[in-house]
Amino acid sequence: MTRELQFYTNPQSRGNIVHWMLEELGQPYTTHVLHYENTMKAPEYLAINPMGKVPAIRHGDVVVTEAAAICAYLADAFPDAGLAPANRGEYYRWLFFAAACGEPAMSDHATGWDANTPELQKRFGYGSFEQTFEVMADWLSDRTYVAGDQFSAADVYVASLLNFGILFDLIPRKPAFEAYLTPLLARPAKQRAEEKILQLMAAEANLAG
Amino acid sequence: MTRELQFYTNPQSRGNIVHWMLEELGQPYTTHVLHYENTMKAPEYLAINPMGKVPAIRHGDVVVTEAAAICAYLADAFPDAGLAPANRGEYYRWLFFAAACGEPAMSDHATGWDANTPELQKRFGYGSFEQTFEVMADWLSDRTYVAGDQFSAADVYVASLLNFGILFDLIPRKPAFEAYLTPLLARPAKQRAEEKILQLMAAEANLAG
Repeated sequence: MTRELQFYTNPQSRGNIVHWMLEELGQPYTTHVLHYENTMKAPEYLAINPMGKVPAIRHGDVVVTEAAAICAYLADAFPDAGLAPANRGEYYRWLFFAAACGEPAMSDHATGWDANTPELQKRFGYGSFEQTFEVMADWLSDRTYVAGDQFSAADVYVASLLNFGILFDLIPRKPAFEAYLTPLLARPAKQRAEEKILQLMAAEANLAG
Repeated sequence: MTRELQFYTNPQSRGNIVHWMLEELGQPYTTHVLHYENTMKAPEYLAINPMGKVPAIRHGDVVVTEAAAICAYLADAFPDAGLAPANRGEYYRWLFFAAACGEPAMSDHATGWDANTPELQKRFGYGSFEQTFEVMADWLSDRTYVAGDQFSAADVYVASLLNFGILFDLIPRKPAFEAYLTPLLARPAKQRAEEKILQLMAAEANLAG
């Protein structure tokens, strides 16, 4: 079995987070585009991710799903890329905060589901939508990177979440987010990922036409 | 500053996940009980976790919040305890799946918020409540541990989530969950944590009385 990274995605999905991560990594990978209505629910893919969702990666016989888990896995699997910082406390804290508080708070709020009583705020790990993004903005307000003093896989995940939320008007457009995002979104690896995602979208449009 | 682990919790909180993890670790730690209405929102604690929630830990000058992040951090910080498996792909996959799919799916469902249209299921990382717990049950059906062939921090987190969900009737009581949970809940470290949590609850009741 090839050890080359196999990447399962759709250009309109959370797979774009992993696309950026793969470009930061600088390792060869093969991209497989799957579709929501058919190939994502086909037995071949359900054997990789029984959730029938992208992204997923296969690396030899290791399969990883969940965008944040894939970022953390790749950072550890290729330590030479320097994407896992020495301070793993902040690193894990913000990877999990973004994945398990930021994402659900954003999705619940976008759906009109707001935890706005003390009882609900105790039930939800994220407390409230407003507080979740205030706390992230305060943390980022005097930092270049979310964990320690180097760019890491946690930045790929956190910046992707914030950028998506701002683009689609799902989270508050706070100055601390924009100051944090501007240099990260300009990184060459992010630019390469964007270009590849646009190519995948163009290929999809051609297929559909 | 002491390097001894400082543990911030409440015996009726997700802090109990970390309590089990600390007992598995076998390192000395000091427990600080905080209360929802006052000390959790006091400036001293907000400096540790601006979310005003427990659990959190302090280890020297490293602060970690989010129960799953704390489990992952402690497993890496004390490698001799053997709680971080070599197969980090499965380990991260299920830590993040439980924290970022299992937890939100359970909390949304308990609140009567169900992602029951294809559009909503695309928006939510967890897809649907039913699918999330079906996929976990299928994964666990032929496994003793959630990641690889050894007990790890991922088991502490996953088993805590499933046990809580079953105790409070928030998730389906699937045979695969009960088969997975029975030996894990009988572990001496889990038993010690339970005993300490009961002691903390008794001390709280005495204070209140």
